[in-house]
Amino acid sequence: MSASKTIFIGVIGVGGVGKAFLGQLDFLRQRLAQQTPAIDLRLILAQRSTKRLFSSSWAALDISTVATQLDQSGTPPPPLNETYGQLAQAPGRVVLVDNTSDAGLAASYPAALQRGISIVTPNKKAFSDSYDLWSAIFSAAANGTGAPSNGYIYHESTVGAGLPVLSTLRELVDTGDEVTRIEGVFSGTMSFLFNSFQPVGSAAGGAFAAEVKKAKDLGYTEPDPRDDLNGLDVARKLTILARIAGLKVASPTAFPVQSLIPKELESCTSGDDFLARLPEFDAQMDKVKSEASAEGKVVRFVGSIDVAAGAVKVGLEKFDTSHPIAALKGSDNIINFYTKRYGNNPLIVQGAGAGAEVTAMGVTGDLLKVIRALH
Amino acid sequence: MSASKTIFIGVIGVGGVGKAFLGQLDFLRQRLAQQTPAIDLRLILAQRSTKRLFSSSWAALDISTVATQLDQSGTPPPPLNETYGQLAQAPGRVVLVDNTSDAGLAASYPAALQRGISIVTPNKKAFSDSYDLWSAIFSAAANGTGAPSNGYIYHESTVGAGLPVLSTLRELVDTGDEVTRIEGVFSGTMSFLFNSFQPVGSAAGGAFAAEVKKAKDLGYTEPDPRDDLNGLDVARKLTILARIAGLKVASPTAFPVQSLIPKELESCTSGDDFLARLPEFDAQMDKVKSEASAEGKVVRFVGSIDVAAGAVKVGLEKFDTSHPIAALKGSDNIINFYTKRYGNNPLIVQGAGAGAEVTAMGVTGDLLKVIRALH
Repeated sequence: MSASKTIFIGVIGVGGVGKAFLGQLDFLRQRLAQQTPAIDLRLILAQRSTKRLFSSSWAALDISTVATQLDQSGTPPPPLNETYGQLAQAPGRVVLVDNTSDAGLAASYPAALQRGISIVTPNKKAFSDSYDLWSAIFSAAANGTGAPSNGYIYHESTVGAGLPVLSTLRELVDTGDEVTRIEGVFSGTMSFLFNSFQPVGSAAGGAFAAEVKKAKDLGYTEPDPRDDLNGLDVARKLTILARIAGLKVASPTAFPVQSLIPKELESCTSGDDFLARLPEFDAQMDKVKSEASAEGKVVRFVGSIDVAAGAVKVGLEKFDTSHPIAALKGSDNIINFYTKRYGNNPLIVQGAGAGAEVTAMGVTGDLLKVIRALH
Repeated sequence: MSASKTIFIGVIGVGGVGKAFLGQLDFLRQRLAQQTPAIDLRLILAQRSTKRLFSSSWAALDISTVATQLDQSGTPPPPLNETYGQLAQAPGRVVLVDNTSDAGLAASYPAALQRGISIVTPNKKAFSDSYDLWSAIFSAAANGTGAPSNGYIYHESTVGAGLPVLSTLRELVDTGDEVTRIEGVFSGTMSFLFNSFQPVGSAAGGAFAAEVKKAKDLGYTEPDPRDDLNGLDVARKLTILARIAGLKVASPTAFPVQSLIPKELESCTSGDDFLARLPEFDAQMDKVKSEASAEGKVVRFVGSIDVAAGAVKVGLEKFDTSHPIAALKGSDNIINFYTKRYGNNPLIVQGAGAGAEVTAMGVTGDLLKVIRALH
């Protein structure tokens, strides 16, 4: 502990989440500059795919204008290893903020951590690809089993954006509770889609293909909605939760994941082609809906982890209309933690699980955790 | 940062929460002893109202038997100031765990923090009595505006027990979100009582006095149920939340708090006397229930904070049967955070908000935060 401290920040990715993060970083910088002892948060690197700004003098880049400056005067970035070499020479600790979904960048985290660079990120790739990469990351991290001089890593926003999901699960595990089951709606897109397709307490929702089209038009899906409907995004989140709960899940394809892309449409060459043909399968989805209705239930797209059985799965399930998962609204996520301590009624976290500002909030919150650890 | 570290632990209060905490401390001690670098969590003080065990040699007391040892061979504790003087001589950092609800102990926190002793506690008194005490605590704490060599303080379990309530609110505030409104059910007793008195989707609950009697018999109330029905416990929790949200609430009696103790029964000399006479007021409570029913609503005992208006209140409110607060089950708490980032749908945290194990979990989680800050 010293009377004041500089922490150097590098940001890769200045799109939606990246820009929201920069706004929050500016807020945090002003806040920490006023506290006693002051912490000087200094942005020294801003980078996107083809350009970067790097302050080799270690003077602060202007957070409020850096995105524009990057466009105007950025230069091609060197290989990651070279960037890490440069960051490791900073006269103080460095935190790298990865606001991309780049698998190559994710694969380099162990090298960065070993050089003492901390990482905060909403990038799911690093934590949901191979178990080997997961192990390498937490073997290197100071908050894993790495040396105390290595970097710290936090990734709250990889599941449920800014909702306190991973921090809650880690606290349950770290304090010795027995987590028996985790179940929830982990995709804002799937939440919106099924809350509209089969709303609770109302006569009927629309046809499935029409709801997908509506979700896309409202911006709730990826540009190609198949990237949501294949279930892989949810499978990646379940992989992360299961690993924190202690299961050595090999990959997001190592357990049953139900894709809502009909087999016959897997060969579609574009998202538009897919959307044009999806109504052919409305009768199938209507059957799913009426089967649920006949039981007094609604259908939802959920992920679940049975910890004792080591079973993870993602797909459609039916829920009583009084169940919290059925009662979800809009595009909210809900996560139910069933544990020995909490008994029959789970610990529930619910709210928006997507969007630039709430995703950036998880990243900024993680940055604060690293700052406290490095103080 | 060093290759290994000893952190000294003192525990005051070894009742229900205290015993549950000791069990979790033993789990955590074993876990941290195995990590690299190892952390040696060493229990050196165990104390209750009239007895204490203090290890002046700094050797570890046996966590698994310390409660029994304390009964058998404890000696009268010296004044707090003397205890702090002794703890401050430990050859390493000290964390004091206050598992009591003692106002005198709470008032001494600033002195302990200034001596470098960290504090974790579910004791609401320190944070909900005078605003002066609140200010003195956070002026002294290293995670407030105190010197970095002072102690840290965390008190997650003062609201919602182990649920991530305070950590979530602090993260919203620290990352620059604008919290507009906080609303919820903050008492397991009140939750159980009103979920039974007027359940959703069922013809009727019992008479109010009978439900109070039932809650008492099932162990959901304080030994004297008036200590729940007066609303002060909820008012204390709202005081804490409002202060974290930035409101300088003077005390838990500085805003409207509805007591469910009828004026005519305020002079009852005992809880039993009170319970015997409470049925005289069932007609009044039935009227409240039927007024809500007539609007298609249910009545619940809630606390709310309108941050912009600076208005805090505690009492009965009516909710649509589809509202998450109406749908609560058992003795669960629910806390809704309405913020600028989260928009119309609040961030919701829900689950058991009372009980020895979940309360101790919040304390143990706080201990982990202090350990990370002291590493």
